[in-house]
Amino acid sequence: MRVRHDQLVINTKGKGTYELTDEIQEKIEKANVRSGTVTVFVQHTSCSLTMMENAAPAARRDVERFFDKLVPENANYEHDDEGPDDMPSHIRMVLTRTSETIPIVEGKLQLGTWQGIFLFEHRRDPHPRKVWLTMMSD
Amino acid sequence: MRVRHDQLVINTKGKGTYELTDEIQEKIEKANVRSGTVTVFVQHTSCSLTMMENAAPAARRDVERFFDKLVPENANYEHDDEGPDDMPSHIRMVLTRTSETIPIVEGKLQLGTWQGIFLFEHRRDPHPRKVWLTMMSD
Amino acid sequence: MRVRHDQLVINTKGKGTYELTDEIQEKIEKANVRSGTVTVFVQHTSCSLTMMENAAPAARRDVERFFDKLVPENANYEHDDEGPDDMPSHIRMVLTRTSETIPIVEGKLQLGTWQGIFLFEHRRDPHPRKVWLTMMSD
Repeated sequence: MRVRHDQLVINTKGKGTYELTDEIQEKIEKANVRSGTVTVFVQHTSCSLTMMENAAPAARRDVERFFDKLVPENANYEHDDEGPDDMPSHIRMVLTRTSETIPIVEGKLQLGTWQGIFLFEHRRDPHPRKVWLTMMSD
Repeated sequence: MRVRHDQLVINTKGKGTYELTDEIQEKIEKANVRSGTVTVFVQHTSCSLTMMENAAPAARRDVERFFDKLVPENANYEHDDEGPDDMPSHIRMVLTRTSETIPIVEGKLQLGTWQGIFLFEHRRDPHPRKVWLTMMSD
Repeated sequence: MRVRHDQLVINTKGKGTYELTDEIQEKIEKANVRSGTVTVFVQHTSCSLTMMENAAPAARRDVERFFDKLVPENANYEHDDEGPDDMPSHIRMVLTRTSETIPIVEGKLQLGTWQGIFLFEHRRDPHPRKVWLTMMSD
């Protein structure tokens, strides 16, 4: 087997979802992986990973609004060292994902028609976010 | 290492949970994988993957009712192109899982006593659902 | 490729989060894995896995309180064979995670500065919990 590591740095501009699909596909091509898997791993606890509908921006806005309501700011959190968006970020991360493993077939991410891979930024301020990629193949 | 891909197609009959454990175990035996992992990957954004209690059907019904209440239909979603169950499906998917990697030991899924692998269908209408399996082994 | 399996047994003392990071790192060193991934897999349906902020205990308490409120006991569950904390445990597990795949680089878990790997115990009583580790490397 071959293990190949790579990484992405995403400069987020505050809360929202940022699609990573094309950049991950480019890394797979650069590494010339034909068949195997890629594990996408977000190295943070105040942003997270999610798969999502990538055709309709309105669907993404609805997902973001749902999380704003489900995990509100100013809910009497004990931990608020970094402001009102601090603790909601950690909870929204726990409710979504940190790693996802995706099949690679004939050099392509084996995604469904409407599937995209997204970084979900939960903080209000811009942050540089590190996403680790590990490709495993024959 | 050896990488082996396979897939399942599940014809769902509307909202609910559908156990995949036995079908995945059969694919492992067919591929003759003795030691490694299987990554189960759902290629959709309106159904998802979950591990669950597989002995008590009442427990599964309680999980399904919880999600119906947590992510209701008719909550003023911006995106409703495909009806009232459209946007709740995408949100319930984000709150659950798309991929799961499960150890294989001596040719068997290394599950706990009560663990089963389930497709969680969030749409009301029947859908053919594709689940990709990637087995990695020595 | 080489596949190496190992396991942890965590004796929980009731509801709460239990950090596994150091024990997983020790298993990686024992197996002498330099580059690859470790899949952490929880073999239960009433406790789960989560990544979390590992510096501030207050942040963990806020996460635990959030789940107590989001998935309350005594909510007229159909399934309550093992008491009021039975069904909430299964739902909290579905909302969090069962497996997580983490990169290993130069013999170390490739975690972010504040990231820890936690078992999330959802039952009130102490339980021995089994966590399976599968390391894949060149």
